[in-house]
Amino acid sequence: MSKRYKIIIEYDGSPFVGWQRQINGLGVQGAIENAFKKFIPDPVKVTGSGRTDAGVHACGQVAHFDLDINIKMLKIMAALNFHLNEHPISILHIEEVADDFHARFSAVQRHYTYRILNRHANPTYSKGLQWHVYHPIDAELMHEAAQLLVGTHDFTTFRSVQCQSKSPVKTIDAITVERVGDHISIHASARSFLHHQIRSITGCLKMVGAGRWSMQDLQDALDAKDRTELGFNAPPEGLYFMRVDY
Amino acid sequence: MSKRYKIIIEYDGSPFVGWQRQINGLGVQGAIENAFKKFIPDPVKVTGSGRTDAGVHACGQVAHFDLDINIKMLKIMAALNFHLNEHPISILHIEEVADDFHARFSAVQRHYTYRILNRHANPTYSKGLQWHVYHPIDAELMHEAAQLLVGTHDFTTFRSVQCQSKSPVKTIDAITVERVGDHISIHASARSFLHHQIRSITGCLKMVGAGRWSMQDLQDALDAKDRTELGFNAPPEGLYFMRVDY
Repeated sequence: MSKRYKIIIEYDGSPFVGWQRQINGLGVQGAIENAFKKFIPDPVKVTGSGRTDAGVHACGQVAHFDLDINIKMLKIMAALNFHLNEHPISILHIEEVADDFHARFSAVQRHYTYRILNRHANPTYSKGLQWHVYHPIDAELMHEAAQLLVGTHDFTTFRSVQCQSKSPVKTIDAITVERVGDHISIHASARSFLHHQIRSITGCLKMVGAGRWSMQDLQDALDAKDRTELGFNAPPEGLYFMRVDY
Repeated sequence: MSKRYKIIIEYDGSPFVGWQRQINGLGVQGAIENAFKKFIPDPVKVTGSGRTDAGVHACGQVAHFDLDINIKMLKIMAALNFHLNEHPISILHIEEVADDFHARFSAVQRHYTYRILNRHANPTYSKGLQWHVYHPIDAELMHEAAQLLVGTHDFTTFRSVQCQSKSPVKTIDAITVERVGDHISIHASARSFLHHQIRSITGCLKMVGAGRWSMQDLQDALDAKDRTELGFNAPPEGLYFMRVDY
């Protein structure tokens, strides 16, 4: 009898084409499915809670899979981690879930954090782990501006042209922007996000923080419902998929 | 007329043989001196507040140097950062100081943080930036044990055989151990430390945290004043030189 399992996954997005397999390279999902091949005879399909782009990191991506073979749960996790050893992917947690649990469709809230290093000097040990913004930006102003985007809106402006979501209307539950020294973190929570939504929001909040956009400019960009009104799409290396609530 | 400058330096220690130049490779000090060669005709000697070992990181190393050439302070910093671009070294701050300021001898307190990732699964994006300890260790117990080492003691047990300090007696002002999720940080402050002292202390605190050493074992190791009584020297990649007070 088949059992369904939920896993929590951490990864460094740098070497991958993203969560999903692409023609041009390995995705995190594919790396995990390849690891299964080393100790499970039949192919195992791994379903993630959401895609992440090339270069985007995760400390709390969630996926599910079904196994009809009798292996102890912690052995599955240990075997996956052993066979994932060549990749910067770690399975942090495993649990058995009900047959109708779905990593993507059962999710009630997703949490992302976007990290910015805001100083003139280049990053050293945090290279590839933060977006480096050279000129000073005002995190308090960014926080204030972010509140314009909280709630239910048509986010067409903040959506990749490749986005496959049926509707551009999404509800953002919370965005907070906080600064600790040179480090700015943007925390965003919603049931689901559009493709590039957080990176697009971050890029525009940075325009506000840098004084290049007023609050009204941000409001106008949102109201325009037009991708060409986007200020800037922030790079992937600052984005972390933090957690999924079910 | 020569002027003396103080700089604050951040670096990723991974690619360097340490702060100081060695026969077998480039040190951070040498990389900065090489950067000076690109825009200052005469050799500039850079004096650090203390050495760090190969692989040890810094976000607040301090150094001083003298220049008898008239360049604006911020231009010196910009030129250094420009010519350091190929290395994970950044100059974060520059200021003019009195002629008798000495990065090493004027220091009144040095602050280090040792970072541990305490979980079974491998690190992903923090690889090389934390010490990965697989089995659970008790941070509260480590904090309690650390208090045995605070104060003035003969730290012969916790000192590298290559240590060049005249005396093994040092005064540690504070050690605190704190856990946030899987992350344990050990903060240590003193006027000065012996070679390998923090890594040796960390290694022994980990023995206590893992239940392999009792408090008394740690006390006995300290009292023994004997390097061969050391429990374990923690690896360099978790150590960060945080700040120097003058």
